[in-house]
Amino acid sequence: MGYQHEQAIAILRRTPATLTALLSGLPEVWTLSTEGPNTWSAYDIVGHLLNGEETDWIERARIILEDGETRPFASFDRTAMFENYKGHSLTQLLVAFEQARTKNLATLSASDITPDKLTSAGVHPALGVVTLRQLLATWVVHDLNHIGQIVEVMARQYADAVGPWRAYLAILTRPILTE
Amino acid sequence: MGYQHEQAIAILRRTPATLTALLSGLPEVWTLSTEGPNTWSAYDIVGHLLNGEETDWIERARIILEDGETRPFASFDRTAMFENYKGHSLTQLLVAFEQARTKNLATLSASDITPDKLTSAGVHPALGVVTLRQLLATWVVHDLNHIGQIVEVMARQYADAVGPWRAYLAILTRPILTE
Repeated sequence: MGYQHEQAIAILRRTPATLTALLSGLPEVWTLSTEGPNTWSAYDIVGHLLNGEETDWIERARIILEDGETRPFASFDRTAMFENYKGHSLTQLLVAFEQARTKNLATLSASDITPDKLTSAGVHPALGVVTLRQLLATWVVHDLNHIGQIVEVMARQYADAVGPWRAYLAILTRPILTE
Repeated sequence: MGYQHEQAIAILRRTPATLTALLSGLPEVWTLSTEGPNTWSAYDIVGHLLNGEETDWIERARIILEDGETRPFASFDRTAMFENYKGHSLTQLLVAFEQARTKNLATLSASDITPDKLTSAGVHPALGVVTLRQLLATWVVHDLNHIGQIVEVMARQYADAVGPWRAYLAILTRPILTE
């Protein structure tokens, strides 16, 4: 299916409430556990989403609309949340994410994204020329990817507890999701 | 991490609200699209979860507690939702799932699941002897697995729309989640 702006926004608008419904008030044994060294907990992933919201997505959209291909995007630091939000509770991160997402969608709405603007392009530091349409589609998939990563890391805490059912649960055995 | 009953219930209790936050009111292009023949849409997956709630999980727990290994579980029909809920809207399925889950957790709570009862066993038609602890752990992972499957099938509707970012989004390229 092709990118449709209002359909994309419908997903972006729902992510904060989805994360809150899934994670708010959960025992920390679920939210702080990882899948092993160099993998992320649900808490880490929410921090990563917040960091993208504060520094990356809307800023790249702005660069495309204002500077086009004349000014490449800054690189996005995928692990900045480990320093930036040290000491923050999961609840604080969830609230901050909801607020940042709401603000960013308001900014996007104010930009009046026409079909013409969707074809505007910018330069990604590693991927080269990308369009606003591709950026916004990626924002959507990035949300879904990280919701998938959260349920995966939580599910794997019970990889042994399920006993023989393990054979039926692909989420426990296939290669893990990363960024 | 080992199975802890209250921690497991904390996940099971959150799934209906998570699915509602993610899916309620979304355009059908997201909720009815599959990943191709013989794969499930978000709508199909919610129906599968509802069907498990109405016919499988709590019934198997009851068999373990009342009959133990003397009476094997019935097979669970993974695709019964296609017939059972024909014509139901997604909203109807989400509401019915929330109600069925609430009822089942009340039944479980009334069963006073002690550590002793968790070691009780039953007979799965394909997997053989399984304990109540393994059944309940699987119920949790099954929820998380299907939330993961829902975000995956939705993400893949934008597999082309993301353009070169596809290389960074494992959710678009790895083997798909099934049951």
